[in-house]
Parts: sequence; structure tokens; C-alpha cells
Amino acid sequence: VDYQHVQVPFEITLWIMLASLAKIGFHLYNKLPSVVPESCLLIFVGLIMGGIIYGLNDKSPPVMDSDIFFLYLLPPIVLDAGYFMPSRPFFENIGTILLYAVVGTIWNVFGIGFSLYGICQVKAFRLQDVSLLHNLLFGSLIAAVDPVAVLAVFEEIHVNEKLHILVFGESLLNDAVTVVLYKLFRSFCEMPAIKTVDIFAGVGKFFVVGLGGVLVGLIFGMTAAFTTRFTKDIRVIEPLFVFLYSYLSYLTAEMFHLSGIVAIIACAMGMKRYVEANISLKSHTTVKYFMKMWSSVSDTLIFIFLGVSTIGENHEWNWPYICFTVIFCLIWRALGVLVLTFFVNRFHVNTITGKDQFIIAYGGLRGAICFSLVFLLPDFHRKKLFIAATTVVILFTVFIQGTTIRPLVDLLAVKRKRESAPTVGEQIHIRFLDHLLAGIEDISGHWGQYYWKDKLEYFNSKYLQKILLREYDQPKSSIVLLYEKLERKHAIELAEAGQLGHAPSHPSLLCFVFLCSNNDKTVIIDKTLEDTLNSDVLENIQEILARNLYRIRRTGPAYNRHTLPGETEPVEHAKEILILRHKNL
Amino acid sequence: VDYQHVQVPFEITLWIMLASLAKIGFHLYNKLPSVVPESCLLIFVGLIMGGIIYGLNDKSPPVMDSDIFFLYLLPPIVLDAGYFMPSRPFFENIGTILLYAVVGTIWNVFGIGFSLYGICQVKAFRLQDVSLLHNLLFGSLIAAVDPVAVLAVFEEIHVNEKLHILVFGESLLNDAVTVVLYKLFRSFCEMPAIKTVDIFAGVGKFFVVGLGGVLVGLIFGMTAAFTTRFTKDIRVIEPLFVFLYSYLSYLTAEMFHLSGIVAIIACAMGMKRYVEANISLKSHTTVKYFMKMWSSVSDTLIFIFLGVSTIGENHEWNWPYICFTVIFCLIWRALGVLVLTFFVNRFHVNTITGKDQFIIAYGGLRGAICFSLVFLLPDFHRKKLFIAATTVVILFTVFIQGTTIRPLVDLLAVKRKRESAPTVGEQIHIRFLDHLLAGIEDISGHWGQYYWKDKLEYFNSKYLQKILLREYDQPKSSIVLLYEKLERKHAIELAEAGQLGHAPSHPSLLCFVFLCSNNDKTVIIDKTLEDTLNSDVLENIQEILARNLYRIRRTGPAYNRHTLPGETEPVEHAKEILILRHKNL
Repeated sequence: VDYQHVQVPFEITLWIMLASLAKIGFHLYNKLPSVVPESCLLIFVGLIMGGIIYGLNDKSPPVMDSDIFFLYLLPPIVLDAGYFMPSRPFFENIGTILLYAVVGTIWNVFGIGFSLYGICQVKAFRLQDVSLLHNLLFGSLIAAVDPVAVLAVFEEIHVNEKLHILVFGESLLNDAVTVVLYKLFRSFCEMPAIKTVDIFAGVGKFFVVGLGGVLVGLIFGMTAAFTTRFTKDIRVIEPLFVFLYSYLSYLTAEMFHLSGIVAIIACAMGMKRYVEANISLKSHTTVKYFMKMWSSVSDTLIFIFLGVSTIGENHEWNWPYICFTVIFCLIWRALGVLVLTFFVNRFHVNTITGKDQFIIAYGGLRGAICFSLVFLLPDFHRKKLFIAATTVVILFTVFIQGTTIRPLVDLLAVKRKRESAPTVGEQIHIRFLDHLLAGIEDISGHWGQYYWKDKLEYFNSKYLQKILLREYDQPKSSIVLLYEKLERKHAIELAEAGQLGHAPSHPSLLCFVFLCSNNDKTVIIDKTLEDTLNSDVLENIQEILARNLYRIRRTGPAYNRHTLPGETEPVEHAKEILILRHKNL
Repeated sequence: VDYQHVQVPFEITLWIMLASLAKIGFHLYNKLPSVVPESCLLIFVGLIMGGIIYGLNDKSPPVMDSDIFFLYLLPPIVLDAGYFMPSRPFFENIGTILLYAVVGTIWNVFGIGFSLYGICQVKAFRLQDVSLLHNLLFGSLIAAVDPVAVLAVFEEIHVNEKLHILVFGESLLNDAVTVVLYKLFRSFCEMPAIKTVDIFAGVGKFFVVGLGGVLVGLIFGMTAAFTTRFTKDIRVIEPLFVFLYSYLSYLTAEMFHLSGIVAIIACAMGMKRYVEANISLKSHTTVKYFMKMWSSVSDTLIFIFLGVSTIGENHEWNWPYICFTVIFCLIWRALGVLVLTFFVNRFHVNTITGKDQFIIAYGGLRGAICFSLVFLLPDFHRKKLFIAATTVVILFTVFIQGTTIRPLVDLLAVKRKRESAPTVGEQIHIRFLDHLLAGIEDISGHWGQYYWKDKLEYFNSKYLQKILLREYDQPKSSIVLLYEKLERKHAIELAEAGQLGHAPSHPSLLCFVFLCSNNDKTVIIDKTLEDTLNSDVLENIQEILARNLYRIRRTGPAYNRHTLPGETEPVEHAKEILILRHKNL
């Protein structure tokens, strides 16, 4: 047996296998995941694994390597989060999110740091050797809400979209703040004396790290979109570019000490729209599927490793310090959310309710990022205490808060996510209001959200689309796309029910959206009108659709079924023209 | 800038990016890939890259690490090859393939080894210090036809299926022989004296290495199939298991010094059927797409690295030895194919023609496997000569043979692959003949190919399917599946042409396959009958189909559209029953 030779890939594969099998195991019993969040179960599996390793080897099991975490496990999760980020609620609440992420995190860091320093002054606790700077350093790593933990819990409890994006957006964007504060305090710890200049330089760094991350991400995102313009002949490597460019943006940002998380989110959000239009439908399915799969595996591995790393002799159990850490984490977060929300609510009509505030404060879960950062600390004699405190905070938030948040959401009757997708009528109205508000803002000279959105949209259609999309001269109306999708779905349903060719199209579907291909005057008959239409009108609509749909589709989007590899478009077009002519005769 | 920190993943990503961009670049000019095989262009890119690195650093660029090749780059290609292997022609020609792979490779190894030893005796060449054993060792690594190189060239020239599977199957299965001979000679080189026992042990090893690989592969393949029985609730990690289990089979086989290539092929071929039935349609698309993508990237990287590694000072240019190596490789392969085919043709009705023999001999391309093996040689003073000879042989076969094989195929008018898929009528007849021949073989007591296939099929449906498939009590008729697929495709076409609900189903499609859901008496009306049917009969058929198709589909296969994540089957079923009832009223 030559185990040495294959050790590295073999063990990696086995760990991934363990993670996947654990996931299957939980889902075999349907009741389990609905009571306990998966993250808790995975940590539990990790604890058992760690116990076994500890028992067999009689030494501490290997802790999760910080490099492995930051370079290999975290990026897939953040990429998935950024790519599937609902951009509308995100940009609508960007101000609030940034306030929570920047001011809130700073508030927590200093709050926790200073109060723990106060605890250290109590002689009975024997902690007087922990300096203020070390407490602040510890505060900077323990204050950060963890996107992986938040995602794992919030994806299961289905709170309303705004609440979800507030907590989740904060957990993603506070990375820039955490990175800066953590590095700042760490360098202060090693400096003999701290000058005022250094502190100002630290403040300036916030902007460099955050905005730099956004810039790096956008550059890579645009390059990715541009690259996919040229992949028409080799569809099979299209998904690769999505992954390669986002990963490069993360690594590049990390290389320049910028925020990798912010970079990868900017990259994913920036390229999504263009890449989706350029690549084939199958490629897109693969991208989506693989992203979900990868992030799900990373996520699982992180929680299992968290459990494994908890076992061992890395800890110094000074209970007063640990307990007060947990308490301060809770108190300062609650206070921070209350104060910040007070200011936010003064400037918004659509306020954040008291219940929502409670869930935001309660949903501040800590996770693997804290854990990796604490192991990256420079060696000093109280490092094991910090490790112990971090472990307890993570386990407390994931187990206690993670398990109780679902009953609390039920108990408080927090507004849930609406299950159904918005109707076409709603979509039209929302878009109409957007244009209206942009116009109002333009006339009144108020440069608000809608004004900028409109300008961006103009810039996008005027310049970006021409450069980044393969076929840019098309009507990109989402309604046309929706109609086609519905018709296709309906056709498949009919085919599977064996009804094709007999029944007329299901009236509600045809009535659902009715549009003339004439793009200037899009006539929409809302769903609510359905009942008032008689069959003559319906037939008339069908006639118009049948005659005109070809024209729409010919100038249709790049990612329809006809650009799949191996199919030649001209032939398809010719065939359809023939079908239509034949029918008309 | 902290480059050290991100170096490893950054450089890996950049190499993959270079490979992908090179691929895009070639395909931008449509004429280039049709004249020169992609592998040549990639090696050329590699040569340029190597030249640049050499020029900048003034030292040899890093050679391709053999471990990286065997552990990370080769498995995806072999997995792809095994998964998409057309199993029918493979098993029909398994005897011939094994003869070429085992006897042919041994023939080549000893032929090339002994004749090169003869060359070494010529005093003028100054090669007298190269022993017979070293020549045989060199022969064992240079004789092996390379699956990566063969696949790269043969996928582009579209020769007939039998010819393709003969060359490609040989290149895959000779791995077991090459591994054994290479390790045998290498251990002989280090032994002070060779006993007769050792030689017999070597012969015995053939069977252990080959059959052991098959066994390991099948065990992992069956486990993979069994695992996918339980992934119904977490579709998103289904594709992962396909990759994890096949990779584990490869690594496990390598660990026990068995043939990893044979193992991964056995695993992929074994699990394919069951996994496909268990996993969702989207998962399957992802599996297929990712496999193709991964193998395509690996393939590209291998050829680029081949080029990069060629540049440098690792070579000893003894031209007589190198030239004779190329000549002997050609001669012995041609002789081997001639002699072996002579015997094969005596036992087969469907003989291998002279043209085919020429292409088989000419298509014996060498590639990265030789290259990695020559670098793995133990250090001895003539290693650089072997490296130079291997490099020249690879470049000669890939560039000269690879570029000229397409014109030769055209010139000789070698039978091409038929472009169209077999009709349903053909499929029925083939299956009917299979059963007939199995019956004849059973009665006559001749245990041939059909007899074993029939037994295997019985064993499969009696035991394996019950264990490995989630829903095994279904009619697995491929005709039902095909009909559904055609109807669905037709429905989508109609929907896209805007004709849904107006036109009756296109007659040729409906007439194409007509089957009663009554599984015992499947009535097939062949495509050729289409014209003789009048519209009344057609309508009658449509009636029967519409009434009966629901029943088929309810007990349909696990991987139809209705088992996608997020869709609840009972609701769908209820809805369809409603539609059908409504229609009947």
C-alpha cells in the first residue's frame, strides 16, 4: 500500500464525502432539519469526529487551517451569496446595510473591547495582564457577524425579504471593517508606540479597503462578461470563466490587502447580468447548480471543521472572561441595532419595526470567520483564552440563538417572505413607478436612488451592453422573456399530459400576458381581467400572438434554446418561417 | 502586496485561465482548428510560454510534475472518457481491444526494447553503456498509446465507431500493461540479480493489476449508485457523488498499485446507468457539462505543460538513438497491428479492413503519460537521453501524425461515423436480434457475448436495480422515454413558433412512435409507414395516446421533469388527472 502518494487528494475527498454523507443523513429524517438548524447538527458531527480523533491519537485533532478557510472554503460561499443576491432589495436598503455594517461594527468592536477591558480590571478574575489593545483586538474579531452562519440559519426561517437582506448584507459588508480594524490593532500590538497619524491612517484605510474591493471586483466582473462574448463556439468552458474570474478577483483583492469578500460580491453582481445573456442555457444551469453545490459543500465542511477544532487542549477556561464576552456581545449588538435603527427610521417612511429590530439583533450569529481570525493572532500568553472565548461565543450563537430563532419568529409573528412570485401586473407597476420617480427626482433636482438607477441604466444600455453583450441590439424586455417561458412550460405540461394538438391553450395562461410584438405600445391585459374576457376575444388574442410572436423571437435574447451548441440558428429560423407560412395558407 | 499568501491558488487559476483563453483564441478563427489539431496548437502555445520563461529566468522552466499529472490532470479526462464511452461497440469489440491492449503493447515494448538494444551495440553511436534492461524500461514507457492524445485527434476526424473504439479502447486499457511492465523493469533495474520467479510473478501481476482495477471501480461505482438513492431531498449535491466516488476509485486503485485508469473507467461505466436514473435532470446536465468542462481544461493544461516542459536543458541529443526510436515505434506498431488483425479477422465475420488497419497503426499517438513516466525514472546517467527521445516521439506523433491523419482519412475514404442517430425501428430490430441470438446461444450451449449479456441483464433487473434504484418497479422501456422526449421537444418548438393550441400535432412525429401504454403488447408503427396512414387513423392514434399516456407516465422514470427540486409530485399528478378528466367531459 502506497498511502503517502495519494494522501492529500484522498483525505480531501474523504472529508468532502463525509460532509456530503452527513447532509444526506440529516435529510433522511425530515423532522430533524425543521427543528434544529443544519449548522448545529454539522458542528455536532464535527465534535464527535474530533472526539474520536482525540481519543485515538491522544492529542488535539488538527485545527482548521486559516489559510484553507480563507483561500478555499470561504470564496465559494461568498460567490454564491453575491451571485444570487436579490439586487433590488439590496440596493434599496444599501444605506441602512452600510450603516449597520460600518458604524454598527465599529460600535460593537469598541463597545465589547472597552467593556472587556473593564472586566479585566476586576482583581478577582486574575485578568489584569490583558491590555486594552488586546481587548480591542479581540473585540474586532468577535464583533463581526458571520455570513456563513447567518445564511445557514436565515435560509431556513424565511423571514421577509427586507429583514433578510439587512442581516445578510451587513454580515457580508462588515468584512471590510473587520479586516481593517483587525489588522490595525494587530499592527498596534506590535508597535512600540502609537502615533495619532497611525489612527487617522487607519480611518482612511476603511475607504481604501472597501472601495478598492469594489473596484477590483467590478474590473474582473466586466472582464468576465467581455470574455463570455467570445465563447459561442466552445460552450463547454463557459461556466469556467464565471468561477475563474470571481476567484481571481478574490485573490487579487486579498493580495493587495483589500476586502476579498467585497470584491467577489461586486464581481458576481456586476457580471451576472451580462454573463447570463451571453452564455447558453445549459451553461447557466451548470453555473447555478455548481455554485450552489460548491457553497453547500464548503458550508458543510466549515461547520464540521468548527466542531473538530473545538475539541482539544487549545483552550484556557477563564469563565468570567468568557461569560462576560457572551453577555457583552449580546448587549452591545442590541444597543447598536436600537440606536442605529432610531436614526434610520427618522429618514424612512417604510420603518423597521420593533420585532424586526429584535430579529436583527438576535440574528447576529458568529461563525468560522471569527474562529479563523483568532487562530491567526500573533502568539501571546493569553491567546488560548481568546480561543476559548471565541469558541464559546460561536457555539452559543449557533446553538442557542440558531435553534431558538425559528420559534421566536413564529412567536412574534414576524412578517414572512411572500411565497409567490410577483405577478406581471405588479412588475409592470413597479417599473412604471421607477421611471416616474426617476423623472420626479430629475425635475426636483434631488439626486436620489431612482435618479442614479436611471442614469446607470442609461449608461448600461448606451455603452456597457454594446461592449459586453454578444448580441446587444435586441429588445431586452423581461415581459417577452416571461411570456416565452410560460408558453414553453405550458407546452411541456400539455405534452406530458398527452394533450398536445387537441386542447386549445389553457385560457388563463394565454390571458396572463398578452402583448403585441410591436414594442412601442406594449398592451398588457392583467390577470384580473381574465374572467371578463369571453372566448372570442381569447381567440383573437391567440391569432395575434401566433402571427406576431415569430418577429419578437427572431430578435430575441441571446440565451434562448436556439443558441445551444450543435444547433444552427439560420436553419431553425428558416424552418419556423416555413411552419408559419404553411399555417397561414 | 502579499503575493506569497495567495501564490498557490493564484498561479493555478492563472494557468487554467491561460488554457481557457487559448482555447477561445483558436476557435475565434474557424479555419485553424479544421487544419491543425488543437493539441498541436496548445503544445505550440506551451513552447512559446516555455521560451518566455526560459528567456526571462535564464534557467529551464519547471517541468510538469508527474504527481500533478497522475493525481489531478489525468483522472478528469479518463472519467469523461469512461462515462461517455459507447458501451455497445466497446463490449462488442472487447476481445479485439484487449488483444491490442495486452498482446500488442507487450509486442511493442519488447520489439522496441530489443531493437534499440541492437542499435546501442553499434560502436559509432557511443551508446554501449545503455543496458538491455534500460532499453526495455524505455520501451515500456514509449510503447503505450496515450488516451489523451488519441482522444484529442480522433474526436475531430469522425472515423467510424468501430475504428474509434478500437484505437481509443486500446489506449485506455493498455494502462494496466504499461504500469506492470514499467514497474517490473524499474524494480529489475534496481535488483542485483533477476530470478525466473520474478518474471513469472510479473506475468501474474498483469491479471491482478487489471482485474483488481475493474473490481475496485465496480465496488465504488455500485456504492455511488446506492448513495444516489437517498439524495432526493438535496438534489444540489447529487453531481458531487459522481465525481467523488470515481475519484476515490482512482486513488484507491493507485494506492494499491492497481490500474487507476481501468478502475475509474469501470466505476464510470458501472454507475452511469443507475445514477442517471436516480438523479434529477438538472443534476444530470450539470454532471455531463462539468465532466466535459473539466476534462477539456485538463486536456488543454496537459498539452500546454507538455510544450512548456520541452524547453530547457533536460535533454541529451544523441540523434541516432532518437531517430531510431521514432522509426522503431512506427515499425513495431504497424507490424503488431498487421499480425494481430490477421488473427482477429480469422475469427470474425465483420473483418477489419486494410484501411482501418492503417489508421489504427497510424493513430498510435504518444502523449503526456510517456512524458510523465520518463520523468519518474530513477536517476541514471542516460536519463536525459530518454527524456529527449520521448519528447521527440511525442512531438513527432502529435504534430506529424496528428496533422496528417485527417487528410489521410479523406484520401483513403475511410468509412466515417454515421451522422444521424439510429431510428426507432433500427433500435427495435437490434434489440430483437439480441434476444434471438441470446436464445440461440443458450440452446446451442455456446456461451458467447449475447448469452452473457442476457444473463447480466437478468441479474441487473432481478437484483441490482432493486438495490440501486430509488424506484425500481417501473417499465424502463427506452421507447416510452424516447416518445416523451420527442413530444416534449415538439411542444417546445410549437410554443416557440407561437402555434400552441392551434395546429394539430405534426403528423410525422406522432406517427413516429405509437405505443399502447399496455406494456405487454407494445405496438410499433415504423417511420416508413407514415405515408400510408390517413388522417383518420392518425386521429385514432392520438385519441389512444391522450387517454393512456397518463398511466405510463405516473409509473414513469425517476428522472423526469417532475422530480426537480421544489416541485411536489402529488400536486402535479392531481392537477394532471384534473386536466384529463376535464377534457374527457
